[in-house]
Amino acid sequence: MKPLHLIFAAVAFVGGPALSETMATGDLGLVIERASGSVLLVDQSDRAALARIEGLGDLSHASLVYSPDQRFAFVFGRDGGLTKVDLVERRIAGRVVQAGNAIGGAISDDGALVAVSNYEPGGVRVFDADTLEMVADIPTGSKTIGLVDAPGRRFVFSLWDAGETWIADLSGEAPHITRIEGIGQNPYDALITANGRYYVAGLFGEDGLTALDLWAEMPEPTQVLAGYGRGEEPLPVYKMPHLEGWALTGTEFVLPAVGRHEVLWVDARDFTETARTATHGQPVFAMARPDGRQVWVNFAHPLNDTIQVIDTVTKQVVHELSPGPAVLHMEFTPRGHEVWVSVRDAGKIMIYDTRTFEKRGEIDAESPSGIFFTARAHRTGL
Amino acid sequence: MKPLHLIFAAVAFVGGPALSETMATGDLGLVIERASGSVLLVDQSDRAALARIEGLGDLSHASLVYSPDQRFAFVFGRDGGLTKVDLVERRIAGRVVQAGNAIGGAISDDGALVAVSNYEPGGVRVFDADTLEMVADIPTGSKTIGLVDAPGRRFVFSLWDAGETWIADLSGEAPHITRIEGIGQNPYDALITANGRYYVAGLFGEDGLTALDLWAEMPEPTQVLAGYGRGEEPLPVYKMPHLEGWALTGTEFVLPAVGRHEVLWVDARDFTETARTATHGQPVFAMARPDGRQVWVNFAHPLNDTIQVIDTVTKQVVHELSPGPAVLHMEFTPRGHEVWVSVRDAGKIMIYDTRTFEKRGEIDAESPSGIFFTARAHRTGL
Repeated sequence: MKPLHLIFAAVAFVGGPALSETMATGDLGLVIERASGSVLLVDQSDRAALARIEGLGDLSHASLVYSPDQRFAFVFGRDGGLTKVDLVERRIAGRVVQAGNAIGGAISDDGALVAVSNYEPGGVRVFDADTLEMVADIPTGSKTIGLVDAPGRRFVFSLWDAGETWIADLSGEAPHITRIEGIGQNPYDALITANGRYYVAGLFGEDGLTALDLWAEMPEPTQVLAGYGRGEEPLPVYKMPHLEGWALTGTEFVLPAVGRHEVLWVDARDFTETARTATHGQPVFAMARPDGRQVWVNFAHPLNDTIQVIDTVTKQVVHELSPGPAVLHMEFTPRGHEVWVSVRDAGKIMIYDTRTFEKRGEIDAESPSGIFFTARAHRTGL
Repeated sequence: MKPLHLIFAAVAFVGGPALSETMATGDLGLVIERASGSVLLVDQSDRAALARIEGLGDLSHASLVYSPDQRFAFVFGRDGGLTKVDLVERRIAGRVVQAGNAIGGAISDDGALVAVSNYEPGGVRVFDADTLEMVADIPTGSKTIGLVDAPGRRFVFSLWDAGETWIADLSGEAPHITRIEGIGQNPYDALITANGRYYVAGLFGEDGLTALDLWAEMPEPTQVLAGYGRGEEPLPVYKMPHLEGWALTGTEFVLPAVGRHEVLWVDARDFTETARTATHGQPVFAMARPDGRQVWVNFAHPLNDTIQVIDTVTKQVVHELSPGPAVLHMEFTPRGHEVWVSVRDAGKIMIYDTRTFEKRGEIDAESPSGIFFTARAHRTGL
């Protein structure tokens, strides 16, 4: 028989995180702590931090995706690190440094494969989500950006240098690549619409955007929003708006204008501009509340202490908040009753009721940037 | 010190379900076993049944909703039973018989309140999601149907006898009720669009449907789809199509025709009919794959052994399956790569790949009907 103290130790271990109230993972999330290479595990319902997980490398431009069971996060670091975080055991479950310089990733619709988009060496590498073993290496000879998942175990990404978009279908034995030329000069970012139908790339060297209809047998590049330009003056790449910030409000998209204090409204059927709303500063993210009734907008430095809320029926600013210095990101609870806001230089996450705009809570965090709730596991292209 | 056998018993209990692979709840689901008053806990990723939970009363017309953390299900039985099921501990966590005859329920957007719609006594009762204590009783003097949740801690429901729709706002101290008259004769079912904006009631005594724009200050009933009628011959109420079966494919809704072998295509902006597709039988559910590219349709007795798959671009039937006798329900995995089908009289759940249509697995179940995956926790109006 084992000595008693070993038995008690086993009980204590078992009774730790695995038996806390967070065994169900539907209302959890992770916050990127960019300066310290850590992520903060948070609970939406309790408006609380549960644990800090450290050792994720350079998170200065990081994002993450979730496994379908919402147990694991795959964190994509700037330094090429791919870190698998276990939300239940609150620890790193695996980590590979898969390239020298990376920019984002995606998970396949069945949760089996995780892909990472790399600058150096340029291309996409695909990993087994269970083991983090590399299962496919897709060199492109170019910095590779705008990587998203599409239905049918596919990944879509674009080549900065070559102006091409590639569709990698991994549903068979070997990756099947479809190359689409003529996307335009220097695509710098891209998005896929929530239904996985349209892939839209932003161009750094040209005005306008390029859309692909992924439902077509052979998608052809279509120039849309010719007025979506370089603004009044050319901007450096790092100041171009995040396209992931596109918000769908039912029948319209909302997107940050380039180099202007405006958001643009775009008809979701034909990508034509329908209106503009003047804003406090240069928008960074324009995020629709899940019901589409409001759009929350944050702004570039030095006006980045403010958020404006726009009503999507009147297209007017209906509320303004000043959460604090360096508002970097916003994430709505899945059904939209609250919003979490990262305020980097205050070292805080602020939580607001989206109807009364009342502050419902705040959480300490170290230089927080991206906030990612586990409900993202169930959506395409996030 | 405790006797040793007690310590071991504690270890064994702790090491049971709580430490299984199912602590993360994002890819779980429950299947209603209608004949036996039980629910079957299933795992989407493993395509497996994990546990049967019994003692839920009459589940002959049952539905359920999930808590935001995806740990608890609230099951609404025909006999007025409201049962709270714990998916992590795989047991009933609470149960009240709150009325004599009930028809469905909903959970508020913040997960705090569960509402049940009752025939006898007619009205809506609202319960604390933690304790199942009744916090509001809203008698209507009528059979009450079409209960849905709406953003802002609101519930919307309709009165069969009075032809009214009520909006109950529970965000304050006491429920605030808005009564809307003139909905039409005998509303028998209703739905809310996924963004929570439009509430649409089906009428048993009149042709057409009635829509309310919940974004309006005072929503006014609008008659839509005048051609949505009683079919070639009047049908009994229990043969009227489920409105929850409405599918949104991007820019159109698809809905079962009444008493006809057709589905109707409806413009999502103005509720006008755009097309019809002839089908194998009288459709019961028309469900869009989450990306909207396909609609899967099952049929009423005696043609209920068949499913047809319609392509939403061509509006043509592209595939037909015969899963077995009495196909009652279909549920897609959240990102749509697979679909689960309940085949009541075969005692099976069949699982298909939605692209190859290949069967990926099957699970034994006792007279399975509704299939509910936990991702529903994050959506409005389900």
